[in-house]
Amino acid sequence: MSELPQYIESVAKLVDHMIDRYFVNTVGELNKASAYLLTAGGKRLRPAVVLLAADAVRKGSSEDILPAALALEVTHTFTLIHDDIMDDDKLRRGVPTVHTKWDMPTGILAGDVLCARAFEFICQSKANEEAKIRAVLMLARACADICEGQHKDMSFEHRNDVDEYEYMAMVREKTGVLYGAAAGIGGVLGGGSAQQVKALYNFGLNTGVAFQIQDDLIDLLAPPEKSGKDRASDLREGKQTLIMIKAREKGLDLSKYRRDLSNADIEAAIQELTAAGVIDEVKKIAADLVADSNKHLAVLPPSKERQLLMDVGEFFVTRSY
Amino acid sequence: MSELPQYIESVAKLVDHMIDRYFVNTVGELNKASAYLLTAGGKRLRPAVVLLAADAVRKGSSEDILPAALALEVTHTFTLIHDDIMDDDKLRRGVPTVHTKWDMPTGILAGDVLCARAFEFICQSKANEEAKIRAVLMLARACADICEGQHKDMSFEHRNDVDEYEYMAMVREKTGVLYGAAAGIGGVLGGGSAQQVKALYNFGLNTGVAFQIQDDLIDLLAPPEKSGKDRASDLREGKQTLIMIKAREKGLDLSKYRRDLSNADIEAAIQELTAAGVIDEVKKIAADLVADSNKHLAVLPPSKERQLLMDVGEFFVTRSY
Repeated sequence: MSELPQYIESVAKLVDHMIDRYFVNTVGELNKASAYLLTAGGKRLRPAVVLLAADAVRKGSSEDILPAALALEVTHTFTLIHDDIMDDDKLRRGVPTVHTKWDMPTGILAGDVLCARAFEFICQSKANEEAKIRAVLMLARACADICEGQHKDMSFEHRNDVDEYEYMAMVREKTGVLYGAAAGIGGVLGGGSAQQVKALYNFGLNTGVAFQIQDDLIDLLAPPEKSGKDRASDLREGKQTLIMIKAREKGLDLSKYRRDLSNADIEAAIQELTAAGVIDEVKKIAADLVADSNKHLAVLPPSKERQLLMDVGEFFVTRSY
Repeated sequence: MSELPQYIESVAKLVDHMIDRYFVNTVGELNKASAYLLTAGGKRLRPAVVLLAADAVRKGSSEDILPAALALEVTHTFTLIHDDIMDDDKLRRGVPTVHTKWDMPTGILAGDVLCARAFEFICQSKANEEAKIRAVLMLARACADICEGQHKDMSFEHRNDVDEYEYMAMVREKTGVLYGAAAGIGGVLGGGSAQQVKALYNFGLNTGVAFQIQDDLIDLLAPPEKSGKDRASDLREGKQTLIMIKAREKGLDLSKYRRDLSNADIEAAIQELTAAGVIDEVKKIAADLVADSNKHLAVLPPSKERQLLMDVGEFFVTRSY
């Protein structure tokens, strides 16, 4: 039995503690809006990857780079707040989105504040200065790539001919690079060699793509009381997910589900997709990505942390919410 | 006669060259949207302040920190793109705003990309690593403060009782801190002492506030073919500028101008404000700020660059567009 759930929980406690310290009990509406989604839960997976990556390349104390772990969670939250504005989503983590609870300008600004503060937190880690500069560069590059991925994702909305190759390129940017940066930043701040940092980055990148594919499966398969999200919204909106793309390849027409869907409608869609082998095929793509990404970790010395990183990948594609 | 105009022009050329290199001829709509406002002009004043501040504390080559100078221009542009969305402004530098030319999501993302890339550019300067970390921290802090300032500015829209103290606090954040960061980052990357960096930061902060006050004057006084902006929009929208606050202190009621304004209406408003002494009083506040901020520069050794920094302040409050 993996120690991963326990490990993730312990990281979440550390991160929550830092969020309390830096974001809660601050004055002013904008600070409240910035803190709001950060304190509304979240599994703190990216911080866990930062700390595991650091500890996989050194004997050190995770405390030194806790601020960098926080930086990754803060960056993730910034992108969620802005994405929710662009997609006009009303619900996130079971609570109203920032621009719904406040307004659009406050949502833009709350995201901007978090983006800036993420760079501040990277710099507050205890590591050598050159490593911190490399970490800032990795985070900056990841943020720019995420924007490009989100822009591609939105451009897909006007199309119904997106292929697997385009989808994978988009997901690498939208979700992969932030996990890549999480593992790479942990590696560089932990004093890893260039080869180790690169391996960790690639591990994170592939694992992050698998994470997003699983997320798309969860959108369809998980009950909303578990996911905290509006179920089957991808199906209703005709979103170009890997599920849709594979369905189209197999000649299924899912356009009939582009409307308000009852639970029975959703069950019918799941049955249709399962019968055609779409669900299994999509699950296999995610599982293969994880298997492949674990190969990157072979350059690291065997350790408990390396094993836990591999468990992260496994967890990503087996989680049900 | 000050060499400042010539100096600013030479910096603008260097910055424009870097913008061409990093932002023009890139692929994809989002990159085009990110480059768009950057290439639509702009006086490149913040980059000039970065380079002057660096050269005022050392004998060095400005080329080393050109990327940091670009970072400040990129940060400024990021805030303009997002502000234009929040205020739903249609025109900037004489061209349609990013969210008008593309759409709101592309505007949000274009700003986000620029925000991230600014941190990348700071790191690409040639300076010691510790100085670069301090520069990243200063830029991050400035970005968060700018958001707070913009949020305050928007909250003023629902009020007609903002006082001078509140206005000054807002403008320090919204405009002052980025000039503070420009001068401080130049100072720290140029190898200045802690005392020099602090003095440069305070110089920039006060000068930036003066700049904004002058900007408010220009909104009212400058013909739109010069400013590239929608003239007297502050008056029409009842914006709480220092002009409005001083007018209210003197018992003038400007609410009659909260409507579509002809050129004759604007002239009448200017006459009313001039006769009551509002325009002169506001100009004096800006001029006093510049005089005060130049005192901070006394800790620097006398040099051509120190004089040019003082000229920057003078230019800020005498420019007419």
